[in-house]
Amino acid sequence: MASRRSSSSPLEKDLFPFSLGKDTKCPPVTPGVMRIYSMRFCPYAQRTRLVLQYKGIPHELVNINLKQKPKWLRERYPAGLVPILEKDGRVVYESSVCNDYLDEMYPEPKLTPSDPFKKAEDKMLSETFSKVIALYYEVPASLANDTFPVTLKKYLREMQRYENALEKRGDFFGGVKPCMVDFMIWPWFERISVIAVVAPETDITEDRFPRLAAWMKRMNEIPAVKNTYVKPEDHAHFFKTLREGSPEYDHGILQSNL
Amino acid sequence: MASRRSSSSPLEKDLFPFSLGKDTKCPPVTPGVMRIYSMRFCPYAQRTRLVLQYKGIPHELVNINLKQKPKWLRERYPAGLVPILEKDGRVVYESSVCNDYLDEMYPEPKLTPSDPFKKAEDKMLSETFSKVIALYYEVPASLANDTFPVTLKKYLREMQRYENALEKRGDFFGGVKPCMVDFMIWPWFERISVIAVVAPETDITEDRFPRLAAWMKRMNEIPAVKNTYVKPEDHAHFFKTLREGSPEYDHGILQSNL
Repeated sequence: MASRRSSSSPLEKDLFPFSLGKDTKCPPVTPGVMRIYSMRFCPYAQRTRLVLQYKGIPHELVNINLKQKPKWLRERYPAGLVPILEKDGRVVYESSVCNDYLDEMYPEPKLTPSDPFKKAEDKMLSETFSKVIALYYEVPASLANDTFPVTLKKYLREMQRYENALEKRGDFFGGVKPCMVDFMIWPWFERISVIAVVAPETDITEDRFPRLAAWMKRMNEIPAVKNTYVKPEDHAHFFKTLREGSPEYDHGILQSNL
Repeated sequence: MASRRSSSSPLEKDLFPFSLGKDTKCPPVTPGVMRIYSMRFCPYAQRTRLVLQYKGIPHELVNINLKQKPKWLRERYPAGLVPILEKDGRVVYESSVCNDYLDEMYPEPKLTPSDPFKKAEDKMLSETFSKVIALYYEVPASLANDTFPVTLKKYLREMQRYENALEKRGDFFGGVKPCMVDFMIWPWFERISVIAVVAPETDITEDRFPRLAAWMKRMNEIPAVKNTYVKPEDHAHFFKTLREGSPEYDHGILQSNL
């Protein structure tokens, strides 16, 4: 189908230069090698790609056309969602499960505290971020009607929880270094500019959220973050095509790897 | 306010015979004693009550009027949801976080496998049950329009995953004994009869799901399940009042404890 080539990160081997859809064959698995089924613009898959990168785990990347899902994707996870990890016949799906699994299998550097209460505190931050995610999609929708002020208020209140948590924790949610929380929430911060274009009140500015703004700068310097980074204009383009019903899953893939 | 009395289970001390709402004071915490903020009909809170019961952890129960939330509830968890655990100033919320925390703090009997892949397999079953939960609420709604056949098909497909998992695992999701998966999914099985009244095709019968049906019988014999059990007619009554906008959070509380 296509010649293999390495992507922008030496850890990540992009098996094909495009996403695989219906009527494709699943690329044969390589024994002993971790594989991730992903989609370039999927924030959930990015959570797991960030952990693979940060821990230095070499892996194959198989991008999926989520609108025309191959049958072999549903054989691995009936819901047909990414990320899915696969290695030597062991399949793991759902981003939080994938990430906890990687953290146990590849414990260096450890991203989860061993103290049960500290672990619970981190999990509370990661899991309740789903409330921010829901609002993140509600913001653009609410602009079309008169619910925007209420949605914005909720969004700012939820975001404030993370600002407050950073105040207690330091440079990162993990203190002096990133922990699982940093990687679980990062993908939506990378995409914040997309909603900030239509609703500037949501932007993470130094005025509004000084600690989160400084944290974003620090995160942007981390190689794992750089290696999974997608430019704001590419996120915006993808969102636009998704809204229009013809998501361009491969937008920008070739350019970024040349 | 009210005299203290023990509830139907000796492990669970129900601090008040009614749920606490706006303008109430938070009952003073007892040093060294685990407390759960709960709501009698909440399936998420039941997940954690089941684990407290199964592990034999003595605890205080504070029931909350979720329509008129006390300020002190949001001080503990800004979203104002139950379950919330509190002990000696340590607060943990979200049912899956509460249950994992209890499993680490009170490891006997251990409900989570120590092998990372087995743990991931259990987590996948617990976490993706959210898809069944969503359909569980969609079924009654879909009856009013013509989407019922599609909703039912999805519901049966998702339920089949659990039937298949039991085939591999044995009497319980934990094999010969219940594990965390059993307790994370049980509350919705206890309530299945409520939707089965309006949509008999959803019922867990021996014809349709023989393994799940036998599992439900086994679960009903477990003291933890018995001690948190609410009768189908009480669930149905609560759902009805909830739909009507005046949820009777205290329905049946006095009777069950007399």
